[in-house]
Amino acid sequence: MLSEEQEKLLEKIHAGEDIPVEGFLEDIHPADIAACLNEEDVSDEELTSFFQHEDKEFLASVLEQSDDGLQARVVALLPYTDVIRIFSYMSKDDIADILGDLPIDLRKKLLNLMKASDSRELSALMGYGEDTAGGIMTTEYIALRDDLTIAQTLVKIKEIAPKTEVIETIFVLNKNRELVGIADLRDILIAPNDDVLSSIMDETVISVFPEQDQEEVSLLVNKYDLTVIPVINRRHALLGIITVDDIMDVMVEEQTEDILRLGGIGEVEEIGGPINISVRRRLPWLFINLLTAFIAASAIALFDDVIAQVAALASMMTIVSGMGGNAGTQTLSLAIRGITLGEIDLKSNWKLVFKEVAVGLLDGAAIGFFTGIVFYFRYGNIYLGLIILLAMTGNLIIAGLSGFLIPLIIKKLGADPALSSSIFLTTMTDTCGFFIFLGLAKLFLPLLVH
Amino acid sequence: MLSEEQEKLLEKIHAGEDIPVEGFLEDIHPADIAACLNEEDVSDEELTSFFQHEDKEFLASVLEQSDDGLQARVVALLPYTDVIRIFSYMSKDDIADILGDLPIDLRKKLLNLMKASDSRELSALMGYGEDTAGGIMTTEYIALRDDLTIAQTLVKIKEIAPKTEVIETIFVLNKNRELVGIADLRDILIAPNDDVLSSIMDETVISVFPEQDQEEVSLLVNKYDLTVIPVINRRHALLGIITVDDIMDVMVEEQTEDILRLGGIGEVEEIGGPINISVRRRLPWLFINLLTAFIAASAIALFDDVIAQVAALASMMTIVSGMGGNAGTQTLSLAIRGITLGEIDLKSNWKLVFKEVAVGLLDGAAIGFFTGIVFYFRYGNIYLGLIILLAMTGNLIIAGLSGFLIPLIIKKLGADPALSSSIFLTTMTDTCGFFIFLGLAKLFLPLLVH
Repeated sequence: MLSEEQEKLLEKIHAGEDIPVEGFLEDIHPADIAACLNEEDVSDEELTSFFQHEDKEFLASVLEQSDDGLQARVVALLPYTDVIRIFSYMSKDDIADILGDLPIDLRKKLLNLMKASDSRELSALMGYGEDTAGGIMTTEYIALRDDLTIAQTLVKIKEIAPKTEVIETIFVLNKNRELVGIADLRDILIAPNDDVLSSIMDETVISVFPEQDQEEVSLLVNKYDLTVIPVINRRHALLGIITVDDIMDVMVEEQTEDILRLGGIGEVEEIGGPINISVRRRLPWLFINLLTAFIAASAIALFDDVIAQVAALASMMTIVSGMGGNAGTQTLSLAIRGITLGEIDLKSNWKLVFKEVAVGLLDGAAIGFFTGIVFYFRYGNIYLGLIILLAMTGNLIIAGLSGFLIPLIIKKLGADPALSSSIFLTTMTDTCGFFIFLGLAKLFLPLLVH
Repeated sequence: MLSEEQEKLLEKIHAGEDIPVEGFLEDIHPADIAACLNEEDVSDEELTSFFQHEDKEFLASVLEQSDDGLQARVVALLPYTDVIRIFSYMSKDDIADILGDLPIDLRKKLLNLMKASDSRELSALMGYGEDTAGGIMTTEYIALRDDLTIAQTLVKIKEIAPKTEVIETIFVLNKNRELVGIADLRDILIAPNDDVLSSIMDETVISVFPEQDQEEVSLLVNKYDLTVIPVINRRHALLGIITVDDIMDVMVEEQTEDILRLGGIGEVEEIGGPINISVRRRLPWLFINLLTAFIAASAIALFDDVIAQVAALASMMTIVSGMGGNAGTQTLSLAIRGITLGEIDLKSNWKLVFKEVAVGLLDGAAIGFFTGIVFYFRYGNIYLGLIILLAMTGNLIIAGLSGFLIPLIIKKLGADPALSSSIFLTTMTDTCGFFIFLGLAKLFLPLLVH
């Protein structure tokens, strides 16, 4: 769904018109321009001609807001020198992301054409894992010595400001270049000119190491309401900073991953992507599910003789197993969310399982009682009702137990609970549901058959 | 899990010691101090004595980082005048949130004790719905006239800076007090002293109306990589701003809601909360599930006679229904995530359903073929295998169809697809799975019974 402005832009692109920044492009947000260029019917020629526009700073802002595919396409299409000029207006973390996705020879060529210092910084950034603090940090920040006066600080800030991502927070280093504090621009603006930076800085600095997982970083930024978090090494040297816009991207990315994994899609896929990729991603997961379905089905097969005598059991058993799955999923989602937000772990919180078991007992008794009544009236057999009550209560207790413990144990073992918990859970609740219900039915069989 | 510092603080609180800000409290982040005060064993007396500390600015930073319960407790415990003094260091959105949770008489008393302008602003903020842009905005921002020179602007900024939340972005108003642009402090710092603000401001302002849903706001902030977004009325007057820390809270809140709703918990509950609340929240949902389980079970009951003759069908049918549920949930999670991120809607994207149907067909054929082979060898009956293949393929097509369309239709009807989609989906896949499989079995019954 493009806006009217975007439609107009797209027309101009297709018409091959010269598109002025002033008076036209500057009124459209770079993110919306990037969305236009991403439309299927924009050809390579059109893209090339758009990106050969004279205003490289403007093009940089559009490229920063483009998605990975468009960025790679543009870089591959343009002359090297144009790419380098556009890069010169972009922040290092964005450039590193683009370079990281390029074929290795193109990447090397571009790095060779850059200033040696830039190419060194970028190579260092690309060395960190994509999902780590190092992988999302940038190197454009203001770091000043702690013995500078406020007057000197202000001069420096004016000098560096145009080249930095964050201006509100100044990072303060001691003479060994260790990060010792952060200073708020607000405080600098109102401090007397001859104070030194160290006297107004805040020494409680929340920082991360480059190898830390991006999800941990986003939890910290959230917890402490930060707008920027410094990345340091073990010797307290400042390596880079992570800004809040990247943290928000991490939050969206991790949330997408969690929702899809909970739904049985291990690796993130596009909703409109090619069919063969979807099948390749989803089918293995379905086969794992199939194996667990076989396990549950064999629990039923154990009681073929009982079912042959009381066929009505076949429909009832699916209610017992299904409700166990539903109740277990409730507990499971609470537990997984708690784990994601760093609120619970196996060691400190295993006792909470008693609560979930109690909830399972109460919910199971209520649901079981109601279902029992229904089947008593339907088949006129009180024992059938009693068996449902017992089996439902038992299965919902197991559901509470498994829904809580399975994700915590998986987390403890170092895997992602969102990915595999629900498989284990439904295997438990299906198999136990069938087994308890049909087992009880076999036990009371003489009372069920008239 | 408290840190060493937090343990030390807690000890001092229990010992009733005088706790110095300088040299002790200032080294602990306010969020971590708030976490200490939130411990169960901190009594009302201890809390009162802590919050009667002289440094109200410091106390304000702790109170801002406390959760709702602790805030309400502190405000109820302290003398009114202390509360008002602490509030004077807090931002208006935080104060409005606290006041909104208080008993009405206490709220009125506090409002009466404030400056008339403050109390008016707070009442206006409290008038907006909790989950709207108005409900999360604050009124501390820097708004300046567009005809100010850079020199005048810098003087104003120094004046207002200590009282504002955001300093990097200056909001620019025309003489009718309409928001006409935003100016970046970076640009102001390097502009010539006699330029006017309007010459360096950016006129492409992304803004929201106060009644807009907070989730929409967070999507915009994300899309355009903003650190602050202005809230305006229909006449373009600036009502307030929303800062990125509040946006991150919204993202976490909405994510939690989505995960729990997908798992069958309609209203967010605490994982360690009281049992009776958990039961009350989860049981109604289980009863709705129970009704759908009855529907699926009646599909089975239609074929009691078939099952009585071939009891093995009872275990096989759960595999067909279960796999439909699994495949449907894969599609469902993709669709729900796409809806949440504003990427798809029914009108523009209904054609994508063909892709999901195709994936269902391919996955169903693969899974069905494998399962058919297994059952052919297990029971030595080729028709049993064929029936499984057909039923599985059919049910996975239905799964793709329902998994994609159900959430889009629910969204179109104005409800939250995360809340109810999976109920409808599993009702479809269970009922259709049983019906197709057992229906086919009935049709081919003579071939199944030897």
